[in-house]
Amino acid sequence: MSTEIPYKIYLEESEMPKQWYNVRANMKKKPAPLLNPETKQPVTAEELETVFCKELVKQELDDTTPYIDIPQEILSFYQMYRPSPLVRAYCLEKKLGTPAKIYYKFEGNNTSGSHKLNSAIAQAYYAKQQGLKGVTTETGAGQWGTALSMACAYLDLDCQVYMVKVSYEQKPFRREVMRTYGANVTPSPSTKTAVGRKILEKFPNTNGSLGCAISEAVEAATTQEGYRYVLGSVLSQVLLHQSVIGLETKTAMDKYNIHPDIIIGCAGGGSNLGGLISPFMGEKLRGEADYRFIAVEPASCPSFTRGVYAYDFCDTGMVCPLQKMYTLGSGFMPAPNHAGGLRYHGMSAVLSELYDQGLMEAVTVEQTSVFNAAEQFARIEGILPAPESSHAIKIAIDEALRCKETGEEKTILFGLTGTGYFDMYAYEKFNDGKMSDYIPTDEELQKSIDALPKV
Amino acid sequence: MSTEIPYKIYLEESEMPKQWYNVRANMKKKPAPLLNPETKQPVTAEELETVFCKELVKQELDDTTPYIDIPQEILSFYQMYRPSPLVRAYCLEKKLGTPAKIYYKFEGNNTSGSHKLNSAIAQAYYAKQQGLKGVTTETGAGQWGTALSMACAYLDLDCQVYMVKVSYEQKPFRREVMRTYGANVTPSPSTKTAVGRKILEKFPNTNGSLGCAISEAVEAATTQEGYRYVLGSVLSQVLLHQSVIGLETKTAMDKYNIHPDIIIGCAGGGSNLGGLISPFMGEKLRGEADYRFIAVEPASCPSFTRGVYAYDFCDTGMVCPLQKMYTLGSGFMPAPNHAGGLRYHGMSAVLSELYDQGLMEAVTVEQTSVFNAAEQFARIEGILPAPESSHAIKIAIDEALRCKETGEEKTILFGLTGTGYFDMYAYEKFNDGKMSDYIPTDEELQKSIDALPKV
Repeated sequence: MSTEIPYKIYLEESEMPKQWYNVRANMKKKPAPLLNPETKQPVTAEELETVFCKELVKQELDDTTPYIDIPQEILSFYQMYRPSPLVRAYCLEKKLGTPAKIYYKFEGNNTSGSHKLNSAIAQAYYAKQQGLKGVTTETGAGQWGTALSMACAYLDLDCQVYMVKVSYEQKPFRREVMRTYGANVTPSPSTKTAVGRKILEKFPNTNGSLGCAISEAVEAATTQEGYRYVLGSVLSQVLLHQSVIGLETKTAMDKYNIHPDIIIGCAGGGSNLGGLISPFMGEKLRGEADYRFIAVEPASCPSFTRGVYAYDFCDTGMVCPLQKMYTLGSGFMPAPNHAGGLRYHGMSAVLSELYDQGLMEAVTVEQTSVFNAAEQFARIEGILPAPESSHAIKIAIDEALRCKETGEEKTILFGLTGTGYFDMYAYEKFNDGKMSDYIPTDEELQKSIDALPKV
Repeated sequence: MSTEIPYKIYLEESEMPKQWYNVRANMKKKPAPLLNPETKQPVTAEELETVFCKELVKQELDDTTPYIDIPQEILSFYQMYRPSPLVRAYCLEKKLGTPAKIYYKFEGNNTSGSHKLNSAIAQAYYAKQQGLKGVTTETGAGQWGTALSMACAYLDLDCQVYMVKVSYEQKPFRREVMRTYGANVTPSPSTKTAVGRKILEKFPNTNGSLGCAISEAVEAATTQEGYRYVLGSVLSQVLLHQSVIGLETKTAMDKYNIHPDIIIGCAGGGSNLGGLISPFMGEKLRGEADYRFIAVEPASCPSFTRGVYAYDFCDTGMVCPLQKMYTLGSGFMPAPNHAGGLRYHGMSAVLSELYDQGLMEAVTVEQTSVFNAAEQFARIEGILPAPESSHAIKIAIDEALRCKETGEEKTILFGLTGTGYFDMYAYEKFNDGKMSDYIPTDEELQKSIDALPKV
């Protein structure tokens, strides 16, 4: 019967989701509230509105409404690059000789090269609705910055991007894509902001980090008239927008009567994983179905597996609200040899709470094994994957090989969040045999964890 | 009624073409035969088989069979990345304020980033069938080399790529993609071949050209046991394989009752344009329908518009058969300021003959106007286009604006052959205002045209 399933399932436009799904609405125990870093009291909407757009603050704080309408203008934008295909990895299955059925939801078929565009257009839209001049943001691997540039170009909004220095240098072409879409790109830490200058003074040779770029972008947003800050991951509003990935996947799977046994996603800040699993997790929370969820994180930045579940700053500059999450401490800087994204010290509050409740698992993988899986996947399935996505590929292959041993015909679904076309510097290192692994020592981690704020 | 047409039309797998269409079969006056450069007599299949795979020679010489079955293994590979979407450019139409309806067939949603994969898998497949060890080829902008690497990795064939030096240097990441797929990439001209050494001796500072890289690849194929040469454009077999673009487009348009008035494609060697227009041209040749076809070429390499229709070498090294085509002379080297592909001195024999019969038009556009159109398109339609494809975008926009003046509701179809993700060096020049135009002088052209072989 499996031959009846096409290589790629594309939904009809009429089948595409018209609402986002808010998984928090189905959680009995909700994620802990964001705290004001000074008062240690839950932040109010008013406080958040100095940093974020009004409507996005509403979405951030809403943990009860299960479905939220997607505005028509966002739906139109989605139609330019969505639905994304749900792909049956026939070729990979054959090559591995596994009885497992492997599916991946491929979010890379757009110029930003990843799923980030799903939230970028939403955040830019609400900024435009609010009559703002522009938005500021940070970008690590560059996917989010590119996505936001595209959304802002479409809506004619100014876009200021603080790009983690190591990415800015290793990915000059990412910068050019953003510039082509009219964005203003600054390597972070920079001397443009007070927080950037402070970090540079303390660590003049730093490669930068996502947490530090966030601090700069937040400062830029709050010191310029008519600007707000937007963020591509971690926040609950981002998971909400990214639920479009899971909703499309679920509709496609339901259409063909496919029930995934295992759902796998890479986890940096949690946006793709959270988006992919949301509707499935909703079923699990409501007791309607069961799934095994696996978060895959890099061994060099292991928030779930070696972090602590505690209140922490979302940024290195300690200007953002405190969030309860699995964290390595906002002072943690991932090793410079670590390629691509997934460099964030913390994790989505929603996913952290779900993980803490034992509703999902987490594993770590080392960098060279990830690139081995990436190369294998590229040669067999054709798509050259982003290093981030390749974390999920690695574990999907491992699970499929386990099925080969046991003879189980499990259905494995993973999120292929994006393409690696702007990550060839990392691939070059791998091709030259110059890529190395790095696992932080317990002492290193303890140092940044010890510095967590007292709440 | 236009709102009933989706943003993107994807065919069902069952609707995908199972046969390629050979437009030569419907041409009353056929393209002139290839000639042996020494005897000046039509080349025989046997002669060609020393360079090309047997089955491909058969396709190259077959100008009577209208439909040729696509082997199952190629169909399976096509299913990994096809059907490609036929996109209705609603956003572009709105922004231009034109009554025209604009459609584009987007071939960039695969890692090679272009339509080249359609012929690469076919050529690699026939090489594998023949029991060969590997294939050699040239690549200019890098799209063809990447496509061939992907096809060879899939079929486990060795792949040796001679890459035009200027591209090799400006696109190191293209090289890395090919290496990730296991290909061996050499900048051309190189000292690996006799013809390369000869060219380097004469022009030590040359940027290389497609014609010169072809010569090296052909020599490498004929001097190694178990290798043949494959080519990504110009040849009639390539147009045959690329007909899958036009066939899918036509099926999708027929399904929604859309009749294109104007069909536009960029023209380097003619592979994309030929593939896109083939089935439509077939209708025109059979008197069943009429269309206006426009080939768009760069002002810096204007084979159709300023070349002559004559027998010429396909390569600078003058080792390939002679082909009757529109050509600037095989000694013509495009200006180094010219970015991307479309650097070939000649043109497909099929398209040359169709053009000579007045069945299609050709126009030239200058580089900066092309990048202006590319940027505009990227910001409005989301996709950052390849410089090559942007030639077609420029003319599609011009035609749509003409409709705005006249009020005509024409339907415009153009080929969006690929993405510009590996062309950011060129975009950077454009973003920095450092891009310039170059139009060869009559004297320059006359010099290389005067050197045409006497037949």
